[in-house]
Amino acid sequence: MIRIIACGKVKDAWLRKGIEEYATRIRPYDKIEIAEVPDEKAPDSNSAAENEQVKLIEGERLLKKINDGDYVILLDLAGKECDSIALSERISSIYTYGKSRIDFVIGGSLGVSEALIRRSDFRWKLSSNTFPHQLCRLLVLEQIYRSFRILHHEPYHK
Amino acid sequence: MIRIIACGKVKDAWLRKGIEEYATRIRPYDKIEIAEVPDEKAPDSNSAAENEQVKLIEGERLLKKINDGDYVILLDLAGKECDSIALSERISSIYTYGKSRIDFVIGGSLGVSEALIRRSDFRWKLSSNTFPHQLCRLLVLEQIYRSFRILHHEPYHK
Repeated sequence: MIRIIACGKVKDAWLRKGIEEYATRIRPYDKIEIAEVPDEKAPDSNSAAENEQVKLIEGERLLKKINDGDYVILLDLAGKECDSIALSERISSIYTYGKSRIDFVIGGSLGVSEALIRRSDFRWKLSSNTFPHQLCRLLVLEQIYRSFRILHHEPYHK
Repeated sequence: MIRIIACGKVKDAWLRKGIEEYATRIRPYDKIEIAEVPDEKAPDSNSAAENEQVKLIEGERLLKKINDGDYVILLDLAGKECDSIALSERISSIYTYGKSRIDFVIGGSLGVSEALIRRSDFRWKLSSNTFPHQLCRLLVLEQIYRSFRILHHEPYHK
């Protein structure tokens, strides 16, 4: 099964709708769950140390959602690229080698903690461009859906 | 002013809403217009030659929307990366050097024609991952909005 583990509620109704839409499209291929942990306030007036603290707390909350045997794909601007074909191959080989749950972890607005980086099995750079972390949820779901379409030799949109 | 030149109608209502939302956020910073040209049907049964023809026709329609003096940024998987800071610097320097209109051109589901590639001033690879071209509209608008926030030294979401 696939889990998206992410921080904070999605505020925009259109974005919630899009996320739900892609989750629905994935369901015929695999179980999918979105696990949301509360985010911390990070006002612009925060010091660097305070921001570090926010990242740490959010990181701990995300970590708690991860089970021991899970394969963890961490969304990380400092990670490696993985195009749509490579992602489908990765998902297929994770399942083949006995892992039954893949967690896609999306950090909060300040990025990902060191502890999350250590726990991750693969750090994925989706783009060199920074996107709002809530929009990332949609993009990750679209890529997972696309992966299953590729694995099932079905057409998918470009 | 900024123009998005793209193929086909956006079918999902939530996506239309998201696109409109970002266009509205951009408007305090610059004029923004979305120019849509009709797309061609490209059924999976199409031969390679038929698909090439679709790309050509859609390319011609997109080209017709581009004015002589425009600076053209073409979304292209075979292009170069341009992170959010670099994009904001690029937009700023285009305006500084006398171009008054920037066109972001998004091809159809089969990609971009050779003629479009020749006309473009910059080919931008947004991600190694393929996204539906209609979703690209949202992503490009988000990055343009982010660019203006960066240029105005205003906070923006991550």
